Amino acid sequence: MQPTTPIQSTNRATAPVDVPRGLAGVVVTETAIGDVRGREGFYHYRQYSAVELARTRRFEDVWYLMAHGELPDAAQSAAFARRTAALRRLPDDVGAALPAIAAAGNRSGPLAGLRTALSLFGAAQGCRPVYDIDTERRRADALAICAVVPTLLTALHRLGRGLEPVEPRPDLPYAANYLYMLTGGEPDPVRARAIEQYLISTIDHGFNASTFTARVIASTGADVAACLVGAVGALSGPLHGGAPSRALDTLDAIGTPDRIDAWIRARVLAGDRIMGFGHPVYRTEDPRSRMLRELAEQFGGPLVDFAVQVERRVEAILAELKPGRDLHTNVEFYAGVVMELCGLPREMFTPTFAAARCVGWSANVLEQAEDSKIIRPAARYVGAVPPAPVPPVHAPVA
Amino acid sequence: MQPTTPIQSTNRATAPVDVPRGLAGVVVTETAIGDVRGREGFYHYRQYSAVELARTRRFEDVWYLMAHGELPDAAQSAAFARRTAALRRLPDDVGAALPAIAAAGNRSGPLAGLRTALSLFGAAQGCRPVYDIDTERRRADALAICAVVPTLLTALHRLGRGLEPVEPRPDLPYAANYLYMLTGGEPDPVRARAIEQYLISTIDHGFNASTFTARVIASTGADVAACLVGAVGALSGPLHGGAPSRALDTLDAIGTPDRIDAWIRARVLAGDRIMGFGHPVYRTEDPRSRMLRELAEQFGGPLVDFAVQVERRVEAILAELKPGRDLHTNVEFYAGVVMELCGLPREMFTPTFAAARCVGWSANVLEQAEDSKIIRPAARYVGAVPPAPVPPVHAPVA
Repeated sequence: MQPTTPIQSTNRATAPVDVPRGLAGVVVTETAIGDVRGREGFYHYRQYSAVELARTRRFEDVWYLMAHGELPDAAQSAAFARRTAALRRLPDDVGAALPAIAAAGNRSGPLAGLRTALSLFGAAQGCRPVYDIDTERRRADALAICAVVPTLLTALHRLGRGLEPVEPRPDLPYAANYLYMLTGGEPDPVRARAIEQYLISTIDHGFNASTFTARVIASTGADVAACLVGAVGALSGPLHGGAPSRALDTLDAIGTPDRIDAWIRARVLAGDRIMGFGHPVYRTEDPRSRMLRELAEQFGGPLVDFAVQVERRVEAILAELKPGRDLHTNVEFYAGVVMELCGLPREMFTPTFAAARCVGWSANVLEQAEDSKIIRPAARYVGAVPPAPVPPVHAPVA
Repeated sequence: MQPTTPIQSTNRATAPVDVPRGLAGVVVTETAIGDVRGREGFYHYRQYSAVELARTRRFEDVWYLMAHGELPDAAQSAAFARRTAALRRLPDDVGAALPAIAAAGNRSGPLAGLRTALSLFGAAQGCRPVYDIDTERRRADALAICAVVPTLLTALHRLGRGLEPVEPRPDLPYAANYLYMLTGGEPDPVRARAIEQYLISTIDHGFNASTFTARVIASTGADVAACLVGAVGALSGPLHGGAPSRALDTLDAIGTPDRIDAWIRARVLAGDRIMGFGHPVYRTEDPRSRMLRELAEQFGGPLVDFAVQVERRVEAILAELKPGRDLHTNVEFYAGVVMELCGLPREMFTPTFAAARCVGWSANVLEQAEDSKIIRPAARYVGAVPPAPVPPVHAPVA
């Protein structure tokens, strides 16, 4: 193929294709994993409503659905739960490195700690380039990583606070074991089930920057750990979203019910964004938000009452001040409330989100690995015109 | 904006845009860092020929060019060399974690070790989200990381072989210090300069999957370490390229000069790819290859003679068997020869490439951080039609 421009500004001998900034709306792949239908207030994993899965299924069953493409039958479900529970323990050399990782993680946040620990675990596991292994082996690498993420996260969290890590318990489901390793105490079944529902609802949510990062890395044939480590890095960016503690910060900033109206009016009139409200995709209520509000209301108490009041007043004040602008709570708002009620420390909100998302990223990596085409776009050079002569050096080079 | 399809298959409320597979030729950004002109056999950093920079400048000066956009004057050059030399030492807690990382790295290769060590160092350094800090602070984070990469790589390499790491020497230039830390012996100036020229020529090479990965992660606002860790992951994929040891494997497989013709004819007739030959961009000789062959010929000896013979015979046999198909050595071919002659162990070839490329990735991260738009494309859902009712669970959920 011949280039159509006199000077070829892309690496490949194809005509440059111009697209919207940030690749917005650019279809980079086909997927059978799931999608979001923003106008309908609906998102799905495979052919199932994600919220319905969260309401009715175990985390492990939905994990199986993401990894295998279909829900397990009773025998498959039991076998998968046993298999993944047996994968929760850390190899000794990984465990030995965690104190150093926890110490460093205190300076850049818990996602940086997860990034390092996942990278180390993947290497210790001997994860191999996805193009060098078959689907079964890729899936095994992904399962091993997803299974240890709660162990890594809770160990790093406890080490950072001078506590000993708690060994995983293979007799507990994923979510209950997560709470157990975090606190060291017997997990309350209602709280464990609430966290499980949150985790299920967070496994995937259409295409986003971290999912795309995982797929770009997978498209080079790199190993599953390399892909998930890159995705954790992307998730740690403040523009990515996925920081449910920010919505609680809004509740804290308002403080008391009598201050709600003044606080919100000031923000709306100043044109400020209110954390926990608004979503770039949903034109309706965020379906995750609805589910999480119901979970929160099941607990009840002053925090929930306050959150519901804030939600109502934001909607009412917006209807008054900015008629026609529909703004609903997003997933962060009630996710933060639910995690707080379940006893998770705030600094663990985003890492908990990341734990669930590892399952979604892994499904994307497995799907991308079936494609043999590297994702390798182009850039347009707009700098000073080359070649300019290199100026003489100030002193001779050896 | 209204979607143009009845069911919106992308996350954003924009019409989906279809593009070539793998985003080939799709312009995702403008850049003033550099470019490749494949038909002219030319690539450049800023406005300067990369090969001319490699022939005439210190690694540190070109690093400065990438980081600051212009070559340093004499005072800036000396200050930058002093500043980066002082950044080579590892913090104690990072050094303490390296034996565990080295042990795990033996199972997934040295790039997995670099990925973990870089992630740990970035967190220990307290790297902050690029959108939360100014350009000067971003550049400081990038400099700190690029400066310690040789220390991390050589320490992991030595630890993996039961040797003590060698402390960096601030009195040596980047390349000489790299050879010194690798071997523990006084570096030969000719070899150090050859490696320096190789490193300069490898800093950047147009847009590619690892550079794109770094920019996608940067576009979320994540910290510099997150971006480079993702890029190292992408570089570790076998489709990415950048594995100069593969070309030496070709020389090993041929074995002796008398076997060249038979070996190559068999490969060409079978339609096999010959590692070390061919490049998707260059229609001419790879300019890096030309420079590296000259460096190799400066050393001379049986390996160089053999490599030159193989190159000539591949070209002659191709001209005979596949007339019109121009196939030249790529950067891997003589890069492998040069690194072997300079005493680098083969497993360090790709990590050495990665060390130089960290400088190029960093320049891309700094440039991307000036843009506030997240890179977030879309996918088209092609799976089973939702919503299907979730089948009843085999056993009740708690």
